[in-house]
Amino acid sequence: MDTVLLLPRLLVPVRPRLQVLEQMAVVLEGETIKAVLPRSEAIATYQDAGRIELPEHVLLPGFINMHTHSAMSLLRGYADDLNLQVWLNEHIWPIEKAFVGPDFVHDGTRLAIAEMLRGGTTFFNDLYFFPEVTAAAAVEAGIRACIGLPVIDVPTAWAGDENDYIDKGLRVSESWQNEPLLNTAFSPHAPYSVGDDALRRIAKMSTERDLRVHMHVLESGWEVDESIRQHGKPTLERLHDVGLLNERLLAVHMTQLNGTDLTALAGADVNVIHCPESNLKLGNGICEVGKLHDHGVNLALGTDSAASNNDLDLLAESRTAALLAKGYSADPCVMNAFQALEMLTINAAKALGMSNQLGSIEAGKLADLCAVRLDSLHTTPMYDVVSHLIYTVSSQQVSHVWVGGRMLIQDGGFLHLDVDEIIDKAKYWEQKITAQARAARSKEYNLHE
Amino acid sequence: MDTVLLLPRLLVPVRPRLQVLEQMAVVLEGETIKAVLPRSEAIATYQDAGRIELPEHVLLPGFINMHTHSAMSLLRGYADDLNLQVWLNEHIWPIEKAFVGPDFVHDGTRLAIAEMLRGGTTFFNDLYFFPEVTAAAAVEAGIRACIGLPVIDVPTAWAGDENDYIDKGLRVSESWQNEPLLNTAFSPHAPYSVGDDALRRIAKMSTERDLRVHMHVLESGWEVDESIRQHGKPTLERLHDVGLLNERLLAVHMTQLNGTDLTALAGADVNVIHCPESNLKLGNGICEVGKLHDHGVNLALGTDSAASNNDLDLLAESRTAALLAKGYSADPCVMNAFQALEMLTINAAKALGMSNQLGSIEAGKLADLCAVRLDSLHTTPMYDVVSHLIYTVSSQQVSHVWVGGRMLIQDGGFLHLDVDEIIDKAKYWEQKITAQARAARSKEYNLHE
Repeated sequence: MDTVLLLPRLLVPVRPRLQVLEQMAVVLEGETIKAVLPRSEAIATYQDAGRIELPEHVLLPGFINMHTHSAMSLLRGYADDLNLQVWLNEHIWPIEKAFVGPDFVHDGTRLAIAEMLRGGTTFFNDLYFFPEVTAAAAVEAGIRACIGLPVIDVPTAWAGDENDYIDKGLRVSESWQNEPLLNTAFSPHAPYSVGDDALRRIAKMSTERDLRVHMHVLESGWEVDESIRQHGKPTLERLHDVGLLNERLLAVHMTQLNGTDLTALAGADVNVIHCPESNLKLGNGICEVGKLHDHGVNLALGTDSAASNNDLDLLAESRTAALLAKGYSADPCVMNAFQALEMLTINAAKALGMSNQLGSIEAGKLADLCAVRLDSLHTTPMYDVVSHLIYTVSSQQVSHVWVGGRMLIQDGGFLHLDVDEIIDKAKYWEQKITAQARAARSKEYNLHE
Repeated sequence: MDTVLLLPRLLVPVRPRLQVLEQMAVVLEGETIKAVLPRSEAIATYQDAGRIELPEHVLLPGFINMHTHSAMSLLRGYADDLNLQVWLNEHIWPIEKAFVGPDFVHDGTRLAIAEMLRGGTTFFNDLYFFPEVTAAAAVEAGIRACIGLPVIDVPTAWAGDENDYIDKGLRVSESWQNEPLLNTAFSPHAPYSVGDDALRRIAKMSTERDLRVHMHVLESGWEVDESIRQHGKPTLERLHDVGLLNERLLAVHMTQLNGTDLTALAGADVNVIHCPESNLKLGNGICEVGKLHDHGVNLALGTDSAASNNDLDLLAESRTAALLAKGYSADPCVMNAFQALEMLTINAAKALGMSNQLGSIEAGKLADLCAVRLDSLHTTPMYDVVSHLIYTVSSQQVSHVWVGGRMLIQDGGFLHLDVDEIIDKAKYWEQKITAQARAARSKEYNLHE
């Protein structure tokens, strides 16, 4: 197996905590990190190894985006600044109904993956229709992913009723079970859009197969009322009753929490996936990450889709998360820069049940890494590299990316993806979607004449 | 005078409102915009003019950063995630006391100007000590600025008592009065740090000389109580009584507003300068821009200093402003993308009393412009360029910048500033400041032994 030494100016391994190391080497062998050593010792020990000098860079674990609908990157900026119901009913859902199929998912997912890799993201946790297409696109692009197996009580081009979704999802899960880059997770859409029987079936199988459950939970105030109306009990009580409130739950959004919820989440070891930019942009509420952290709840970060963000820039999301946590709690000590970095890396690995493989630069873990250049105007001067990573670094400064020891990006350029072709495909969809929207508007206009 | 045609893919002139134009030309003559014409007409009319093709770009008015302490860029990331009083008393003020002088201000301001220009900012409204040095650095770098004339009831290396500050400031104002790139403004630091007599003198002179008053107002809850304690009345009532509550006031921060305040501000035509990232990071409160907008108050944007932000990225600030306004008011319709763009441009020009010269691309205005490339992954596809500018464009995509018709940045590179030298100078200060901080810590340690 090839051995390669990465020789960065600075190393932030995330574990051990709070360390910023100089004059270190990270030794890659095959898909894993073989050792983390002083530079001189590594060079003496591995004399025949390849060397990658990163003299102006900090080396980090790759970032983990814990909530995406990748294919929706084709709807980036399609509709903004609208009420949630108008946004969904009049814009997003009609377009999805018209276009979502394997080609849409393939081309949109590739666009999303390219953007994520370029910004240092080496793992994404996705939830969308045609998950077998998302899975294939991820493997093809060499990125690691957890592929959500969607379940919703609405028929789509992909499946009919809830059991059909679950059965199709299981087949996807089984067909990819030997692919080292992929996991799968059950992805019931939301408490208001999946029934009790389906949730119970999912809970049972998630325990039997040790699969994560990736679900929108408590995204908006409307959902709180809807749970009482539909089911006569609050959302978290219902999730508990169907057997989903446990350490396998990746509860996304969670903007509507009361004091009891905090205790329940902490007691059940539920993972909360915070998506601050999407929550803000849709005016859905603000997740109280300061309180969750105080209760010991594991917190990770997601961008949500580019239709409600409008980018997949996880570093920028961590800045928003850190700033918002301080501002909302009126306490600048809440969520410091290192804690924000943990949300991007080790906390996400923990949420996925993969903290022995991912989320830090330690011997024996998978070599999913990124390097960031530090020699730009807005990272000068530098008193604290972790502060800079969260508060000033732009994702455009990510220079190198490795997934499973394979270098995918070098000096800001892709080694394996044809970006021009990905952009051309996205423009093709842009034209189709624009034409359809124009036709729909003119039809509506005619109806009103 | 040289005539140049700028030929962008898209033109967003900001005025008229909401326009996105294709196949247009902007004709520059000397320091001004001579005309905005259809491309073919411009080429036929100005056959001898130079042409700059911008085939993948959108052309915009230059951005206006309405609140900076530029020199403090040398303290970027020096101390984070701390309570305001600890941050100021134990970190920022001791370092300022030790280092702030003409050299610090010169080198820090140049670093700030380079970062701002690189991100499309063509005008900054500054407030710091040694304003004559800031002024010289701005002119030297070819950027437009309003130089604050600081007043504070604390003696510094620059001036002694409040009247000394005012007198020195007036001399700075007079010495630069014929420089076309510069304005000056009175800059009383804050209500709690400047006495009534000085404020009355400033109010009188600001009217006589038609100078703006650039002031931190209602930044934190502490300040609300302090006004009652020190002066027996709320801040805005006191500012009214000393004669400062008028259209020349640039009231920065304003995170602590009640219903009466909103009416008072609107009635007096006060301009509010919103600095969301600094307010969030310091946990000082959240400015209610949705309500201010509803009351018809003119709103512009500032980054504040890189010590509390930690960058001077005004485009990113506009994204934070738009997202936060929606999230905080739980209404996604509050502050749409075009309104955010207006805060960066025409609203700032209005606040400065310069809306006949700046803030939009219209014939007769000054040619302060920037171009943004649109051909990157995260701006694809594109349904609405204004949405992209606010919600996805990175300031690294700014490719060209003109101030007063002079091109300062072309294809992302500076034509006139030596960035390496600017970075080297900042590193020199980083070393000095780090050494001083280390010495201070070791002294403190010895004292405790």
